[in-house]
Amino acid sequence: MQRSTAPLRLSIIGFGAVGQGVAKLVQTVPQLKVVAVADSRGVALTPDLGEILGRKRAGQSIANSDYTALDAIRTIDHDIVVEVTPTNIQDAEPGLTHMREALKNKRSVVTSNKGPLVVAFHELVQLAQRNGVALCYEAAVGGAMPIINLIRETLAGARILDIIGVLNGTCNYILTRMAEEGLDYGLVLSEAQDMGIAEADPTYDVMGIDTACKVVILANSFFDRNVTFTDVEVTGIDRVTPDALKLARQRGFAVKLIGEVQELKVSPKMIPTGHPLNVGGTLNAASIWTDHAGEITVAGKGAGSVETASAILSDILSISKGSY
Amino acid sequence: MQRSTAPLRLSIIGFGAVGQGVAKLVQTVPQLKVVAVADSRGVALTPDLGEILGRKRAGQSIANSDYTALDAIRTIDHDIVVEVTPTNIQDAEPGLTHMREALKNKRSVVTSNKGPLVVAFHELVQLAQRNGVALCYEAAVGGAMPIINLIRETLAGARILDIIGVLNGTCNYILTRMAEEGLDYGLVLSEAQDMGIAEADPTYDVMGIDTACKVVILANSFFDRNVTFTDVEVTGIDRVTPDALKLARQRGFAVKLIGEVQELKVSPKMIPTGHPLNVGGTLNAASIWTDHAGEITVAGKGAGSVETASAILSDILSISKGSY
Repeated sequence: MQRSTAPLRLSIIGFGAVGQGVAKLVQTVPQLKVVAVADSRGVALTPDLGEILGRKRAGQSIANSDYTALDAIRTIDHDIVVEVTPTNIQDAEPGLTHMREALKNKRSVVTSNKGPLVVAFHELVQLAQRNGVALCYEAAVGGAMPIINLIRETLAGARILDIIGVLNGTCNYILTRMAEEGLDYGLVLSEAQDMGIAEADPTYDVMGIDTACKVVILANSFFDRNVTFTDVEVTGIDRVTPDALKLARQRGFAVKLIGEVQELKVSPKMIPTGHPLNVGGTLNAASIWTDHAGEITVAGKGAGSVETASAILSDILSISKGSY
Repeated sequence: MQRSTAPLRLSIIGFGAVGQGVAKLVQTVPQLKVVAVADSRGVALTPDLGEILGRKRAGQSIANSDYTALDAIRTIDHDIVVEVTPTNIQDAEPGLTHMREALKNKRSVVTSNKGPLVVAFHELVQLAQRNGVALCYEAAVGGAMPIINLIRETLAGARILDIIGVLNGTCNYILTRMAEEGLDYGLVLSEAQDMGIAEADPTYDVMGIDTACKVVILANSFFDRNVTFTDVEVTGIDRVTPDALKLARQRGFAVKLIGEVQELKVSPKMIPTGHPLNVGGTLNAASIWTDHAGEITVAGKGAGSVETASAILSDILSISKGSY
């Protein structure tokens, strides 16, 4: 799928923080053309990206058509559907239907939406293969931290034995501040909520659900598993005390919420100071155990609209080079 | 350069720890065939790798011919020269002549040898381009820690603003133990020498020369520079005191020997605890500053014969897939 001449045509389905981030980055890449943008209120066809970003900021509708998102995915001739609606791990909708329709219509999918990947991973992978298109989701695990493509491309010669990660920035921020300042979980959580680092309903992050979703995606991607969220044993960070963090620190450890991919387990664990997984603040990190190269760790910003959008852009550019 | 049917033919020039590591790994890959192995005493043609590894272990000559390494590079028909003779940053020989002859004869070069890359980077890159072959050196910077290919492949869509790294495992080991145990530089160095982590003459590592070489290679590779070792401002770790490390630690910092690529500078610097560059022991780490993805850090084993050989194997496999 070499497309060196004509621009690659995209739709952006979902126009929250990540979708807007994608729109901003795509403006700077001449070989990409956005043919439709959908939010929950409607669809903008052949949009002026600067204009709809302005309308969105002003709280106005971006729609200039009667199309639904599904209409756009099905009927407009384009190459890549950027699916960035919110993650829903119950039934994965509306993302799952968007992705199915995109792939069936021979459009590649690039996404940060974990829901469909957790609920229907193998169905979507097979649908992409059958239709000869790509399903790329670097942005769904660890935001700007490259892990999917690092393993697929750069570590292509290595056998991957396990992946162990700090995969949720909100939890990492809370644990880092509790440890550094000796503060209670509840206090740090409410400050994190004020700062926009934690959601008003923080359950999805602090109870380990988000981390478990990433564990599922990595297990299905790299260890030939066919698992879903309920297969993961999950313990959150809500019962971690400042005393436990202090004791760990005195012994040369930090406590992190760790996802273990082969074990299908998420729980607070002690990590030695000086271990590369021991990253602070909202950072994510993942250690990849290999046969001959030992343990390779990558760390980066796990969230943020521009950072997540940059991971999406890197997937789009891989598709444009035919190297997915 | 697609070679899906015939095996890729290699020579291994240099048969120390890394060369032997390459021989061991290559044995496990059916699509690779070693046509010659050279050490300082002679050349084994169409070698049985198991046999020459045994002879080397027993201190015997591996040679079964009158060929020199240069004869083998020039006259034997093969695809890739794995150049793993020792690094020499004075005149870069014998590696530089080996690489020149390999490239002129349209053979790709895969190397861990920093000398030629520091002394004659652009000459070698141009020679490779003119002859339509590859010059790959992932193993020369950070051993098994992927950085060259991470930036070239996985971060291909990002603009790289700077690279800051802990690039020498020996220095990192010494500083880590000094900090953790409050020990003097001299004492830890001599223990590291006993353990084989530091060389009998440790100058190259502890005075920052090795780190400076890696800074030069990264600057020339990613920032369009044309610099060599003497362009780097270098301070080693020999004057770091346990008191300085203790003071830094009390303030929440660790002292690391840091290479700054845009600055062309190597010096001991304070790194905040919880920063991903703050890795312990013999690990290497590098933070890659990007335009949109923020700071991405990768960490891994910077030395070790099998780990370095695995980086060489990954370059060989990239060439075999035509994706260099």
